[in-house]
Amino acid sequence: MEGDPLSALCTPALVVDLKKVKKNAHEMIERCQKLGVQLRPHMKTHKTLECADIMTGGSRRCIVVSTLAEATFYADHGYDDILYAYSIPFDKVEKCASLSERLDLFQVLLDHPDALEQLKKRPLRDGRQWNVWLKLDCGNGRAGVLHSDDGALRLAKAMAEARGVELKGVYAHCGNTYGCRGVTEIQEVAQETTRLTLQFMEKLKLAGITCKSSIGSTPSCSHPVKDMEKLSEVHPGNYVFYDVQQSTIGSCTLKDVAVKVLTRIIGHSPHRNQFLVDCGWSALSLDGAGKLPTGYAVIEGHPNLKLLSMTQEHGRVEPISGQLDYDKYPLGTLLTLIPYHACATAAMHPIYHVHSEGSLVGGWTPTRGW
Amino acid sequence: MEGDPLSALCTPALVVDLKKVKKNAHEMIERCQKLGVQLRPHMKTHKTLECADIMTGGSRRCIVVSTLAEATFYADHGYDDILYAYSIPFDKVEKCASLSERLDLFQVLLDHPDALEQLKKRPLRDGRQWNVWLKLDCGNGRAGVLHSDDGALRLAKAMAEARGVELKGVYAHCGNTYGCRGVTEIQEVAQETTRLTLQFMEKLKLAGITCKSSIGSTPSCSHPVKDMEKLSEVHPGNYVFYDVQQSTIGSCTLKDVAVKVLTRIIGHSPHRNQFLVDCGWSALSLDGAGKLPTGYAVIEGHPNLKLLSMTQEHGRVEPISGQLDYDKYPLGTLLTLIPYHACATAAMHPIYHVHSEGSLVGGWTPTRGW
Repeated sequence: MEGDPLSALCTPALVVDLKKVKKNAHEMIERCQKLGVQLRPHMKTHKTLECADIMTGGSRRCIVVSTLAEATFYADHGYDDILYAYSIPFDKVEKCASLSERLDLFQVLLDHPDALEQLKKRPLRDGRQWNVWLKLDCGNGRAGVLHSDDGALRLAKAMAEARGVELKGVYAHCGNTYGCRGVTEIQEVAQETTRLTLQFMEKLKLAGITCKSSIGSTPSCSHPVKDMEKLSEVHPGNYVFYDVQQSTIGSCTLKDVAVKVLTRIIGHSPHRNQFLVDCGWSALSLDGAGKLPTGYAVIEGHPNLKLLSMTQEHGRVEPISGQLDYDKYPLGTLLTLIPYHACATAAMHPIYHVHSEGSLVGGWTPTRGW
Repeated sequence: MEGDPLSALCTPALVVDLKKVKKNAHEMIERCQKLGVQLRPHMKTHKTLECADIMTGGSRRCIVVSTLAEATFYADHGYDDILYAYSIPFDKVEKCASLSERLDLFQVLLDHPDALEQLKKRPLRDGRQWNVWLKLDCGNGRAGVLHSDDGALRLAKAMAEARGVELKGVYAHCGNTYGCRGVTEIQEVAQETTRLTLQFMEKLKLAGITCKSSIGSTPSCSHPVKDMEKLSEVHPGNYVFYDVQQSTIGSCTLKDVAVKVLTRIIGHSPHRNQFLVDCGWSALSLDGAGKLPTGYAVIEGHPNLKLLSMTQEHGRVEPISGQLDYDKYPLGTLLTLIPYHACATAAMHPIYHVHSEGSLVGGWTPTRGW
């Protein structure tokens, strides 16, 4: 109900601070403008139309998605210039072809010659080209062809030469910034990823190939290094919400975190010096296990409390030291959890309750599935 | 598309083996009939109408739910005799009152005198009574008033005497069976929970109070002890799907597991001796971390493969020993993951794809939220 305070919500509930979302989005837009690179925000953290509008500054153009469900969702709602930045799965080639034939600019990504063959086997109608990015692994160690691998240049050349395919760019995700602590370490990884990507772009240039370049991750784009101005694009995503993990990495401070989970105390366990809250892993996710002294989340305003374990609908809370004073925590008490990983927590909620300074202003409904 | 093989599905996809579901459900119904106790199946694992019909043998009566969203969903679809087996949250008293006034038998649960006061403050219309169970902690260590606590009997008496409230039963969840390995250990916990519950029922009887008794958990109800025949009800839930966790506990064998996640190979990483699959934590959950030699799941038919880590949409797979032969695992290869915890995995999927011996027969849509 619009205008109601947050305390009117039944718990557990995911609440989004609209002002913080706008501030985080705006600061990233400004940062990229200053750097002179195109921001291509990633939608995977929130998967909503409303937040996409904020991140794109209302343009509804130039976004990245992690699933075909997101791609279709945004395409169905007037978005275009969508990059499905996921090594194209062979079972989804036909659906990607449809999107490529329907949108002005639907872009896919690959990192293996077999994937290129799949695209060549499905030429697009009306003389359209597959718009394809090459995924490069610059040390992250997940998807992508390794930057130092001879096969990388060979694959790029094959993409550039393939009939019906246009090599749009080189894409590197520096997820290895998630192992950093502090701006210096973040910028070392950002610098190295940028250096290796630009070095690869030089090799392409020598081979007579020009295309875009893009690197991304919330830590690196929250604290960009100067050389990133030589890239075409960046593609961070989590920054619009941020979370405890990003604050421990050094991307933001805890007060920048725009997403919280409200929970209530539903049980007292004096024989265990604990109480129970109505937030289990079904509302918070199990991400962050063993990472924080305060357990699976930070309990806002209660630095001595630890969310030590969760089952499906229950969370166990105990003091880090000392005995609980249950009079201070009667049943029904509302607590606010700052999630360790916003992407994982948001994924558990069918609706996000949006507020402006504690007053509810609406609900955002994410898309789900693949 | 009905009649299609499982390989027609885009991945990741949750698939449910209808025959195994029916077999698991039927065996539990038979087991309870033989024991002479009422089965009150828990809906929290699947949260679908179709599976509820199977678990209740079509009666659509006598179920347990873990959220008010489930309660409302089932009430809206003709179910009755619903027990919302969750220490009644104070923010949901009004909605519980509505359900109590609307259904023949909506039942709630509590474990604290303050909760009883909340119910007394909201008398039901038309002379109806709140149907309330007392939650007892018989060693599980989560919700419930401790069986040995004097307060337990005091609270039961207060419930029995309260105007507008009827004490329907005593409810104990033996989730501590999840720490067991093998039938002997399971039955020790089942026996102890039963003994303590029946001991408490004796105390009630001496105080002139009679009501039902119920214990539950999939391990204990898969291998019931004889004394459980003295209980009124049992309330297991996970058994309809089972999972790797239940097989390691000893509740079932791996071939009883009715729910799997299909995934495809989307990347080769020869420099790391790994490949990538399109199943991340968004399709499997992070439950089971560090519990299995094969990582976060069992990869059916590939005992030497380990799902060692996941991010949102990627899983990293490596051999437990030796070098990967990539020719055996080309991009696009379909793999089947047996989930560690079916409740956690099912919670990640907006639709379950149901098959009979590998031939698709339909889709089940779970309810979500709270």
